[in-house]
Amino acid sequence: MTKEIRIGLIGYKFMGKAHSNAYRQVSAFFEPPLTPRLKAVAGRDEKAVREFAAHFGWERYTTDWREVVADPEIDLVDIAAPNDLHAPIALAAAEAGKAIFCEKPLARDLSEAREMLRAVERAGVPHMVCFNYRFLPAVRLAKRLIDEGALGRVRQFRAIYLQDWLKDPGFPLLWRLRKEQAGSGALGDIAVHTIDLARFLVGEIAEVTGLVKTFVKERPLPEEGTGMGEVTVDDAAAFLGRFANGATGVFEATRMAPGRRNFIHVEVNGEQGSLFWNAEELNSLWFYSEDDPGHTWGFRRIIATDPNHPYAKAWWPPGHLLGYEHSFVHAIVELLEALAAGRPPSPSFLDGVRAQAVLDAVLRSAEERRWVAVPEVEVGG
Amino acid sequence: MTKEIRIGLIGYKFMGKAHSNAYRQVSAFFEPPLTPRLKAVAGRDEKAVREFAAHFGWERYTTDWREVVADPEIDLVDIAAPNDLHAPIALAAAEAGKAIFCEKPLARDLSEAREMLRAVERAGVPHMVCFNYRFLPAVRLAKRLIDEGALGRVRQFRAIYLQDWLKDPGFPLLWRLRKEQAGSGALGDIAVHTIDLARFLVGEIAEVTGLVKTFVKERPLPEEGTGMGEVTVDDAAAFLGRFANGATGVFEATRMAPGRRNFIHVEVNGEQGSLFWNAEELNSLWFYSEDDPGHTWGFRRIIATDPNHPYAKAWWPPGHLLGYEHSFVHAIVELLEALAAGRPPSPSFLDGVRAQAVLDAVLRSAEERRWVAVPEVEVGG
Amino acid sequence: MTKEIRIGLIGYKFMGKAHSNAYRQVSAFFEPPLTPRLKAVAGRDEKAVREFAAHFGWERYTTDWREVVADPEIDLVDIAAPNDLHAPIALAAAEAGKAIFCEKPLARDLSEAREMLRAVERAGVPHMVCFNYRFLPAVRLAKRLIDEGALGRVRQFRAIYLQDWLKDPGFPLLWRLRKEQAGSGALGDIAVHTIDLARFLVGEIAEVTGLVKTFVKERPLPEEGTGMGEVTVDDAAAFLGRFANGATGVFEATRMAPGRRNFIHVEVNGEQGSLFWNAEELNSLWFYSEDDPGHTWGFRRIIATDPNHPYAKAWWPPGHLLGYEHSFVHAIVELLEALAAGRPPSPSFLDGVRAQAVLDAVLRSAEERRWVAVPEVEVGG
Amino acid sequence: MTKEIRIGLIGYKFMGKAHSNAYRQVSAFFEPPLTPRLKAVAGRDEKAVREFAAHFGWERYTTDWREVVADPEIDLVDIAAPNDLHAPIALAAAEAGKAIFCEKPLARDLSEAREMLRAVERAGVPHMVCFNYRFLPAVRLAKRLIDEGALGRVRQFRAIYLQDWLKDPGFPLLWRLRKEQAGSGALGDIAVHTIDLARFLVGEIAEVTGLVKTFVKERPLPEEGTGMGEVTVDDAAAFLGRFANGATGVFEATRMAPGRRNFIHVEVNGEQGSLFWNAEELNSLWFYSEDDPGHTWGFRRIIATDPNHPYAKAWWPPGHLLGYEHSFVHAIVELLEALAAGRPPSPSFLDGVRAQAVLDAVLRSAEERRWVAVPEVEVGG
Repeated sequence: MTKEIRIGLIGYKFMGKAHSNAYRQVSAFFEPPLTPRLKAVAGRDEKAVREFAAHFGWERYTTDWREVVADPEIDLVDIAAPNDLHAPIALAAAEAGKAIFCEKPLARDLSEAREMLRAVERAGVPHMVCFNYRFLPAVRLAKRLIDEGALGRVRQFRAIYLQDWLKDPGFPLLWRLRKEQAGSGALGDIAVHTIDLARFLVGEIAEVTGLVKTFVKERPLPEEGTGMGEVTVDDAAAFLGRFANGATGVFEATRMAPGRRNFIHVEVNGEQGSLFWNAEELNSLWFYSEDDPGHTWGFRRIIATDPNHPYAKAWWPPGHLLGYEHSFVHAIVELLEALAAGRPPSPSFLDGVRAQAVLDAVLRSAEERRWVAVPEVEVGG
Repeated sequence: MTKEIRIGLIGYKFMGKAHSNAYRQVSAFFEPPLTPRLKAVAGRDEKAVREFAAHFGWERYTTDWREVVADPEIDLVDIAAPNDLHAPIALAAAEAGKAIFCEKPLARDLSEAREMLRAVERAGVPHMVCFNYRFLPAVRLAKRLIDEGALGRVRQFRAIYLQDWLKDPGFPLLWRLRKEQAGSGALGDIAVHTIDLARFLVGEIAEVTGLVKTFVKERPLPEEGTGMGEVTVDDAAAFLGRFANGATGVFEATRMAPGRRNFIHVEVNGEQGSLFWNAEELNSLWFYSEDDPGHTWGFRRIIATDPNHPYAKAWWPPGHLLGYEHSFVHAIVELLEALAAGRPPSPSFLDGVRAQAVLDAVLRSAEERRWVAVPEVEVGG
Repeated sequence: MTKEIRIGLIGYKFMGKAHSNAYRQVSAFFEPPLTPRLKAVAGRDEKAVREFAAHFGWERYTTDWREVVADPEIDLVDIAAPNDLHAPIALAAAEAGKAIFCEKPLARDLSEAREMLRAVERAGVPHMVCFNYRFLPAVRLAKRLIDEGALGRVRQFRAIYLQDWLKDPGFPLLWRLRKEQAGSGALGDIAVHTIDLARFLVGEIAEVTGLVKTFVKERPLPEEGTGMGEVTVDDAAAFLGRFANGATGVFEATRMAPGRRNFIHVEVNGEQGSLFWNAEELNSLWFYSEDDPGHTWGFRRIIATDPNHPYAKAWWPPGHLLGYEHSFVHAIVELLEALAAGRPPSPSFLDGVRAQAVLDAVLRSAEERRWVAVPEVEVGG
Repeated sequence: MTKEIRIGLIGYKFMGKAHSNAYRQVSAFFEPPLTPRLKAVAGRDEKAVREFAAHFGWERYTTDWREVVADPEIDLVDIAAPNDLHAPIALAAAEAGKAIFCEKPLARDLSEAREMLRAVERAGVPHMVCFNYRFLPAVRLAKRLIDEGALGRVRQFRAIYLQDWLKDPGFPLLWRLRKEQAGSGALGDIAVHTIDLARFLVGEIAEVTGLVKTFVKERPLPEEGTGMGEVTVDDAAAFLGRFANGATGVFEATRMAPGRRNFIHVEVNGEQGSLFWNAEELNSLWFYSEDDPGHTWGFRRIIATDPNHPYAKAWWPPGHLLGYEHSFVHAIVELLEALAAGRPPSPSFLDGVRAQAVLDAVLRSAEERRWVAVPEVEVGG
């Protein structure tokens, strides 16, 4: 039996569920060097968190996240709460000496994110940010191909992230639509994933120019019959970027594209090849190589479920597709392996801060209507 | 807390893993009226089954399936062992009064399958056969649309199931390649899924004419250095069918189509519409309806992850895709709900026998080189 | 200026139009060694054929095909009339010493087709049958790859040809629905294309077993208010086949699949690779090769519009797609090059007869409900 | 017989060929009120233009475009020459009282384009710019759906246009790579198509911010052994836009995306629906409508080849695909119908100027690194 790692989870909605599932699945399908023990989950709604705990096998629940952070029997604090709680929880957890696994975006803005980075570095605790899409086999394979030089030098990157759950103006004003809680809208919620993929696959973004747009400016407050409230974040955002290595980037994100439930398209064009990945075909990577015989040039669809594809062997035979949730399981594999090996997990809070720096630059460029340099962030925040 | 149902699983390879995962996941994501308790797992290789038990949380393991069947603390016997063991285990489990969940194909041949049906009926125990593809949201939605009359009367059905794991002649002679253990090859292993989908979506198949083909007639025995053995089942099979309701059917299955890892295409053409589903886009159902405005006729791709799609709400927000393994979780939902309600689960052993009747008719037609009526099978075997 | 070849066309509907276009386009885009001169077109409806002639630049028209055949100023007779006229026209044209280009299916049945072959061979006139799909760049590239050995030995072939123009029972009883004029229905009209592709790509079909089905047995006669008439051909057909080289084949064709306007899927699985082509992506060939690096195995979509793809250079820059009609232009390139070189064009009437032999065998197998050997046809009919 | 319109074509390369084909095909497949007569073609290379004239049936050729413009027997001047010749030819042709059909981009820059517009307005001659993609049936159907209100109010537009013919640094420095001849690179050559589609489908673009990038700064001069020359236009361009009606737009164009031969993706998201079109599936329009029953929501692929789709009936039966070149034939239909009816053809030079205004604004924004308002252009230039 491997050593246990005792988890305290804060948040039990979409991400709390995704993380809980990942902790449960990792030991069944992989051989992680640490076995997650689902020690405690915190959430504000007692009935809901109790039911959640029962469903996913958390040993106990609480309505006060501070209890989780303070609990000496907890080794790792998992932050899956709304964005405005990321910093306070992370700061407290760092101080308490816990390892931290935090959902994206790392914070509401860059200065908050930097503060979190400084806190974990000061405390010397391990830290990881949950950019789960990095951990899909198809995306991981893309990284491998780029690193192998299969594309040659990268020239162009494009990423489109489209959702449609906000298209209806009657959709209520949840926390994700309030700046003080969310920081930003489509930008921090979904564009941030593509920013991370850009950094993962291509490198640092040096400067950006962007636009943000709020199509529906008022929405019903979530509490029945309490009237309307102002939407203080963007419904849609787009920006152009220049990477430090000279590549160009085009990014768009929206939560108002009817029919696009969770559509992500990421494409990289290099000097000798290209690849793209689309979330509607989650398991496939499309790859074009000029190394192929000339009369057979074409994008090939690699269904990344073969034993020689990243993470795939642990699951099912080739061609038996994985889903969205598996990305989180693989993220936990990385987390546990890094913790056991005493090396920093990746992506770390530094990656979270650097993504946040891009978000901040986009917002500023949108406001100032000009190109804005992305602030450089080094270890030490 | 809901009442427990104590599971005894026999088999720990591909299907044992898929079922174990399903028992674990069902209570986390659904609200089943019974909670599976993973009581015991049986397998022949002690070390392997011990590790498997540890991974998936089985309380104990054994190398003798008879122990599982005999165990008074077990309520349901899950048969995920090679095909030649389905009948002996099912007969013993029925006699022991256990509920039974059995992998497909139900048996090696029709007479064996009938015997199993008679045994469970005689014993009065609940029984279900695991045709998991029925339980994918997209497939379930197809059923709903057909039942609603969205296609009109069905005229034509076609199903292609292609894999490629046997393309290499050096692949060893595992049990799935031996008639005495498997019954048949691509036919019983994969075509049987499409036969079940045909029955589920269109109705009974009345007669068939088919061919079977073994491209690689000898393969290395699995035990290193023991020479070659004869492949006694089909590598590929195809047949034409006529449904009782007048529709026509075309079926093909192979395990030797390079690049087709687990490719399933199922299409139904009715008088006023069509639909198709393809396993490489597991979550999507394609639907063509003449009820649409004339200048907008076209197949539409329904990503069956909305809350109003079968089983989808329990998982993730729309557009966050499910994988292959989820089909088994949904099968277990059906099993548990039926058991709790005291109604027969569906598909039952009767469905298993009827599918087997088609397999037998195909094999006979291939041998006799003529059309063969599919034997009718009623309750009572 | 190259030498002229004076064309006499019989038929001015769908195929007459496609051929006329091809004769006009070939000299604009290619450098054929002979220049088609559109001498005369024949059709039964004087007004319609007059208008047609004006549209496509035919120098004169007639309502009597015998005039075209007898005309000493005509070098090549193009038969684009209903199937029952193929034989009488071909026989007369052969006797008159004309080269002949004939639409598919060559005839209504095998004996008629054989008679045509004997006639052209006796007369020593050049002859070609218009299996136009052979001439699409993507299909031609498939042939090249198979010939190069890119798939290894071919094991399996499948072809699906779906249309939907007959799904409405109110569609009138045109000649294509009458056995005495058409010979057969979906079988001779569309399955014949896939039979030709099977022969082109894989080789001769040795034996078949099939079914034919007429879903709508009566239809309105085309002349308003004259009541209903019996449909005497198949609406749908399917058959299994064994190739002489040991490969298996599965074929299906229907004109009653709602939403499938002109859907053709042709797939070839070999020992080391696969390819497929789908008419809804007319310009693309999908190719899977085990020669690719193992972690990048996948079907690649070759858009066959590069200069090194068959026929592509004559048209537009890469990626600017060709349409259906271009296949006929390429067929005429082959016809003119063969005539100028004094070699037999390909596919010839012998290919037409061999395809017809498969049609006949399918119909007989459907009637006799058993496998039927495809009659061998050699030069000499 | 309809009245003739005598055409004088200037340019015989890619576009000269596409236009020649269109003039030839239009009278064969449509019933235009005027019949194009291919009177004269001009080009600088005598041998090449002579051969071209012979191929496409131009009655005569010349190496001096001024002859064409001056010829009293010519009614319409078609400008398919390099961009730097658009203005001089158009000005001369206007002065000579000819109707003008001009390739895109209208000119090298906005002031030149305005001058052209003023000239044709002053002369009172009919004028049309060849934005051929507007005339594809799928794109035309998109326009119809938007005009019918099928999407509700449009919120978002995105367009990606990718080619790869410049990826190789050894590709020579043709006129399209020189600012003095081309005006701009990917921007004016291909992005201009998507700008036109944006205007066609959504409306005027009010302001933009963009980037341009030249990855390969030097290329071999086209004349063998004459060394290298500077690339003075962009290889790639991208910009964000705001439409006058409040919609947002994201545009990207490049000629250096390996594997993307002529990839165009155009997508429109409205309040109640979406549509997209992709040039790799030239005939298909994808449409998502919330008017569909809730459990069947999905993008549907409309293959725009039915008789009730724009321009489709003139060609082939449903499902028999059209190609790239057909867009030009349809443009000529519009041109001839407008001329015969005495109404202005659409898109006119005004559309050309407005597209050019966007190009200019993008270039300026790229230079000044800020948002730039698109200059308004009214009738009168």
